[in-house]
Amino acid sequence: MKAIKDSVHDYITLDDAAADLLDTRAVQRLRHVKQLSTVRLVYPSASHTRFEHSLGVYHLADRALAHLGVDGDRARHLRAAALLHDVGHGPYGHQTEEVIRRRTGRHHDEIRDLLEGTDAAAVLRDHDLDPDRVAAIVRGEGELGQLVSGELDVDRMDYLVRDAHHTGVPYGTIDHGRLVRELDYREGHLVLAEGNVQTAESLLVARALMDATVYRHHVSRIAGAMLERASERLLAAGTGVEEFRRMADHDLLVALRREVPDLGRRIEYRDLFKRAVWTDLSGTPADVAEFDHADERDAEREIADRAGVGSDEVIVDVPGRPTFTEAGSRVVVDGVPQRLEDASELVSGLRAAQRAGWRMGVYAPEACVPAVAAAAEDVLGVRAGRTA
Amino acid sequence: MKAIKDSVHDYITLDDAAADLLDTRAVQRLRHVKQLSTVRLVYPSASHTRFEHSLGVYHLADRALAHLGVDGDRARHLRAAALLHDVGHGPYGHQTEEVIRRRTGRHHDEIRDLLEGTDAAAVLRDHDLDPDRVAAIVRGEGELGQLVSGELDVDRMDYLVRDAHHTGVPYGTIDHGRLVRELDYREGHLVLAEGNVQTAESLLVARALMDATVYRHHVSRIAGAMLERASERLLAAGTGVEEFRRMADHDLLVALRREVPDLGRRIEYRDLFKRAVWTDLSGTPADVAEFDHADERDAEREIADRAGVGSDEVIVDVPGRPTFTEAGSRVVVDGVPQRLEDASELVSGLRAAQRAGWRMGVYAPEACVPAVAAAAEDVLGVRAGRTA
Amino acid sequence: MKAIKDSVHDYITLDDAAADLLDTRAVQRLRHVKQLSTVRLVYPSASHTRFEHSLGVYHLADRALAHLGVDGDRARHLRAAALLHDVGHGPYGHQTEEVIRRRTGRHHDEIRDLLEGTDAAAVLRDHDLDPDRVAAIVRGEGELGQLVSGELDVDRMDYLVRDAHHTGVPYGTIDHGRLVRELDYREGHLVLAEGNVQTAESLLVARALMDATVYRHHVSRIAGAMLERASERLLAAGTGVEEFRRMADHDLLVALRREVPDLGRRIEYRDLFKRAVWTDLSGTPADVAEFDHADERDAEREIADRAGVGSDEVIVDVPGRPTFTEAGSRVVVDGVPQRLEDASELVSGLRAAQRAGWRMGVYAPEACVPAVAAAAEDVLGVRAGRTA
Amino acid sequence: MKAIKDSVHDYITLDDAAADLLDTRAVQRLRHVKQLSTVRLVYPSASHTRFEHSLGVYHLADRALAHLGVDGDRARHLRAAALLHDVGHGPYGHQTEEVIRRRTGRHHDEIRDLLEGTDAAAVLRDHDLDPDRVAAIVRGEGELGQLVSGELDVDRMDYLVRDAHHTGVPYGTIDHGRLVRELDYREGHLVLAEGNVQTAESLLVARALMDATVYRHHVSRIAGAMLERASERLLAAGTGVEEFRRMADHDLLVALRREVPDLGRRIEYRDLFKRAVWTDLSGTPADVAEFDHADERDAEREIADRAGVGSDEVIVDVPGRPTFTEAGSRVVVDGVPQRLEDASELVSGLRAAQRAGWRMGVYAPEACVPAVAAAAEDVLGVRAGRTA
Repeated sequence: MKAIKDSVHDYITLDDAAADLLDTRAVQRLRHVKQLSTVRLVYPSASHTRFEHSLGVYHLADRALAHLGVDGDRARHLRAAALLHDVGHGPYGHQTEEVIRRRTGRHHDEIRDLLEGTDAAAVLRDHDLDPDRVAAIVRGEGELGQLVSGELDVDRMDYLVRDAHHTGVPYGTIDHGRLVRELDYREGHLVLAEGNVQTAESLLVARALMDATVYRHHVSRIAGAMLERASERLLAAGTGVEEFRRMADHDLLVALRREVPDLGRRIEYRDLFKRAVWTDLSGTPADVAEFDHADERDAEREIADRAGVGSDEVIVDVPGRPTFTEAGSRVVVDGVPQRLEDASELVSGLRAAQRAGWRMGVYAPEACVPAVAAAAEDVLGVRAGRTA
Repeated sequence: MKAIKDSVHDYITLDDAAADLLDTRAVQRLRHVKQLSTVRLVYPSASHTRFEHSLGVYHLADRALAHLGVDGDRARHLRAAALLHDVGHGPYGHQTEEVIRRRTGRHHDEIRDLLEGTDAAAVLRDHDLDPDRVAAIVRGEGELGQLVSGELDVDRMDYLVRDAHHTGVPYGTIDHGRLVRELDYREGHLVLAEGNVQTAESLLVARALMDATVYRHHVSRIAGAMLERASERLLAAGTGVEEFRRMADHDLLVALRREVPDLGRRIEYRDLFKRAVWTDLSGTPADVAEFDHADERDAEREIADRAGVGSDEVIVDVPGRPTFTEAGSRVVVDGVPQRLEDASELVSGLRAAQRAGWRMGVYAPEACVPAVAAAAEDVLGVRAGRTA
Repeated sequence: MKAIKDSVHDYITLDDAAADLLDTRAVQRLRHVKQLSTVRLVYPSASHTRFEHSLGVYHLADRALAHLGVDGDRARHLRAAALLHDVGHGPYGHQTEEVIRRRTGRHHDEIRDLLEGTDAAAVLRDHDLDPDRVAAIVRGEGELGQLVSGELDVDRMDYLVRDAHHTGVPYGTIDHGRLVRELDYREGHLVLAEGNVQTAESLLVARALMDATVYRHHVSRIAGAMLERASERLLAAGTGVEEFRRMADHDLLVALRREVPDLGRRIEYRDLFKRAVWTDLSGTPADVAEFDHADERDAEREIADRAGVGSDEVIVDVPGRPTFTEAGSRVVVDGVPQRLEDASELVSGLRAAQRAGWRMGVYAPEACVPAVAAAAEDVLGVRAGRTA
Repeated sequence: MKAIKDSVHDYITLDDAAADLLDTRAVQRLRHVKQLSTVRLVYPSASHTRFEHSLGVYHLADRALAHLGVDGDRARHLRAAALLHDVGHGPYGHQTEEVIRRRTGRHHDEIRDLLEGTDAAAVLRDHDLDPDRVAAIVRGEGELGQLVSGELDVDRMDYLVRDAHHTGVPYGTIDHGRLVRELDYREGHLVLAEGNVQTAESLLVARALMDATVYRHHVSRIAGAMLERASERLLAAGTGVEEFRRMADHDLLVALRREVPDLGRRIEYRDLFKRAVWTDLSGTPADVAEFDHADERDAEREIADRAGVGSDEVIVDVPGRPTFTEAGSRVVVDGVPQRLEDASELVSGLRAAQRAGWRMGVYAPEACVPAVAAAAEDVLGVRAGRTA
């Protein structure tokens, strides 16, 4: 059995299919896609990749299967899905997900077409694994799919501890050993066994604190918004979305520098836009808080006009409302599986805290900030005054 | 400068007064008082002592002072108080605190009389430190006192990370580096600077999860209740409370084995009572939930009578309502210091979760559990059926 | 399966026999015997116990068996032996080992008579385990015995990483994950598989650096020598060796304070003797370097006489020559098992370094140091001048 | 003061000059140069960058200065040098160092010309720092230069602990806290104070074990040799060495894929050559062990001819003899500074062990291995048979 040293889980032992899948282009490409994309502009130690994360998810899936007593064919398909679950990510992962979705309608967990005709599909078949079934598990389908994509999935468990290890921010350090051993199935649903309300709460809390401190840090959001705009312009300039989707981080960085040099250079050398507007839900008109991509673009043009700056020098960034998937995770209480939001008094507090942490932003080059702030106040009807 | 290697903070550098205080009996005694008393019966790695914790509190106090820009005489008194803050703990720390308080009226943070006439008082005076002023800081008085005993004190910061390190339960691993550098004073109150609502929340959350998983684990509570009853009997048998208060863990363990052999042996060899009753607030009559020590003793006797067992074979354990000191910690939001419970939507959720985690218990030797459970149902008007 | 949280190996899963053995007096007593005895007077975080270490050895033994493909009856006996391997330690572990051996002829790994007639023997038999066979494994007999007591035993692997974790000194942090998976048997000998010369060297190096920095730190040696002398006096004053041997740390501490109050109090409050003489091999006459226990006692009396101090105020401490068991560990090189000292150029260097680190000491209360140093120079023919 | 969260040293506080230097292109470029280049093909978690390492070296330099009592102008220059010490590295760091040196005569620590006329030089001057003086410190000149580049430099201390953290291989986890506090100057030389022979040995041992297990792992060496050959071909195809030198990892990866597609793709997707020959010093003719770059090229051509494969399908890799800079580190023994190799018996053992670990290799695509092995035996006069 091949074993790989991992800085989070120590040795990860691979089954034969996994060892062969590891050598495919689809998986090797993940060596060149960073797990936290623009977050490393804030936390410099966070250069870890989706390759390493995929190995971690594989490992936790394997441990969970052992505790659940699942083996044979089902287990083999699940392990393959765990290793492949992120091959659908574009360059810079989540930061380009919407760009790709708007053009292809595909989310990153739809990997069926990406496997088609590749060495990965061949490897799967060599090991009597069905690519369609693997792709379905990656989409979260079926009992096993919940282990890879669901409220209690091992994907989340790995990224929380791994991101904590690599950023140095401790909040993500959950007790994954306990989570994995307390998993159970009840009526087709993955649940945590009796006595684990706090275990489930800890997962929620870890995600909420990492969100606030790491994943949604404003500097990372600014860089991410710049990257998204730059990617739109790259695609507008002629790069095909299928080519784009298969790029790795280095391909995109070099392509942006060539095709969108202003933003490309800024991203490469961390010369970022600054916040001209930064408001919470109470300071944001309801219609603005509901902006979709087209509304954002329209507002950008209008603000740029009024401020007398180029339309590429304004970015309006209205995030979706915070979601809380983990609130639906199931725990057994007094013998009965319940949704965590029903079993835990903490969930509503966390939900409210996440809502309180929502921010919309307007970003511009430092020199343009005063003009853009003034224009944005008019156009969006917000107060530019920053809420930290 | 003397430096001591610590498994949590690496090297701790001591000033001259601290180096001399370290050699006093009051501080050396803390080598023999475990930080987590009966918790180590659940988490075997948690054998760490109040000596090591006191060094950690000294270290964080010193770091906080540097960031706050406090030095000179005030800083020297604070550092001494940090090192001495736990010398008032009796054997097994918090587990004997109530026993001592009932007889002396003193809490563990009242150390003035303990220093009187000792080598520690002499060392303080040798270094131009005023024992009265040091004792006042330990009680939490004054601006500096908040650093050692208050909602944002370094005591809490050290014990959370240290207990996490030694138990292996990750929930306590807060970002103490950040907490210490974000401290500030506003109008005489210790606050966290702008942008730290999540930092404050993380402290709250860490304490709540450690409470549920570690500090209030039912096995530790049972052992703690046994220890408290055994201590009462030891004092009733003639040991003076002033002698008792100055014992270290090993003194108490040997004294109990000699004077209260049934419970003493059980504690020493972890042969613990089991839960006959375990109910949450909704399952506990309001008057029972308000039981004081005398009520508990009365109920024990009544239950024992009815169950036909010895009165030493029933323990009624009604904890106080959960408190949430950290909810009053202050954070600066938009330039204005606010109490965390006003600034954070999370606090009420945590408060509710802690209330939901409250349990009262009746414990008895395994063989007596059925009889005691039945008797307790009648006497207390509770349903014995366990809530996990 | 019962699982216990450990700060080093995370969750440790116990088989049924181990879960029952855990509740026996012999094993519970190890909660009260510290792993590093007097070392914690230097490294205050090192309060961990032989109980926690025994769980760690059990865990690594279980992992090693899985990688070696050993199961069934042999594996069950080995796991029981791993859990029980330290029950033969007296109070303060190695520090009292010679005191006991001089009177009983028994080493700490001879546990057969200690199990006789106890609840532990009964538990073993209940689980169809043969106490004699378990005791033989603890003594290192047979193929499996090497796993618990030998050059590549899991005892060593656990204590190195555990002592590193608890002292904060990183040198012991070996790659135990790799060591355990590279074990193999060749012709009845435990070996490390091909490609592991450095793995074996790392174990050697870790032990050598921990020896120098932790295990043989002069402060710990002084306290240990005081404890040994105090124990001798306790036994001379009437305590039986069989009672002594079964004491835990707290029993000994209380007994010494009562029966040998001068040394007892000094040990309890870390008021230690200081070095009057401290010389390396080149500065120590050959006959002195070979002193046995009786020679040490004679020299102490002679030095005390000449210095005009009490005979209890001089301690002569001549350690045995450094041994290097791990040098005999076997590694496969080019297909052939070799002793590490033949395969590695590093071993002779480490051996020489350990010889260079050898020190003999004469210790005395601080006030007596000058007189004792002068007397010792005459009596032993050494130069008192300290070699660091 | 700006503070940055680091996964190894927690918060790193920057002085004003450092905060400004951080935003320069020279330093931001280091975000895109991995610390361990091809090592991450073996240890997937090791994606950390020279940017993060440079912050770590800055931090340790700052700590060392505080303990050495150096401040003012000298300290400010040293801190700037620490932050800039790696800006002279080409893409993939050490792997392209020889390629650059053969064409420019410059080592990576010669940064003067790279600063000339850049924003970094301007920032230095803005803060009254002399670029020439900073560059001299980076080259290791003067008393302070030893702190950044010498036997006891903080560069080494940071990379050992950081590489251990990110690979998961524990051997590099030195006690940097102790090393930094025990530094001293004696007669212009940086030394470790009295009592630190083992501290110095531990540094040596850590480097030797990391060398064997991580830095010189054969898979990383093969990938590195492929990268070097590919770089030579890129330069031969017209890329200028000054442009090459300033590339970051992503630039080189994209350039290689375009200009040297066979090797470029292989490196990107980890489709590596295999070992046809792998021999130690005893199995390598003396003249072959002394091969320089030109000899290697000649031999490659001759082997390729004889094997009937393309000349790009053979790589001869003869590393230099192992050096042991740390052997010259100075420690104070009995008041006198000595070179470690004179003070420690361990050094010669480590030197011999490193010599024993020397290997030369001939690499080829898997399919060509048998033919290349046979040809190489003839051409080089070695036995192809692998020594592990």
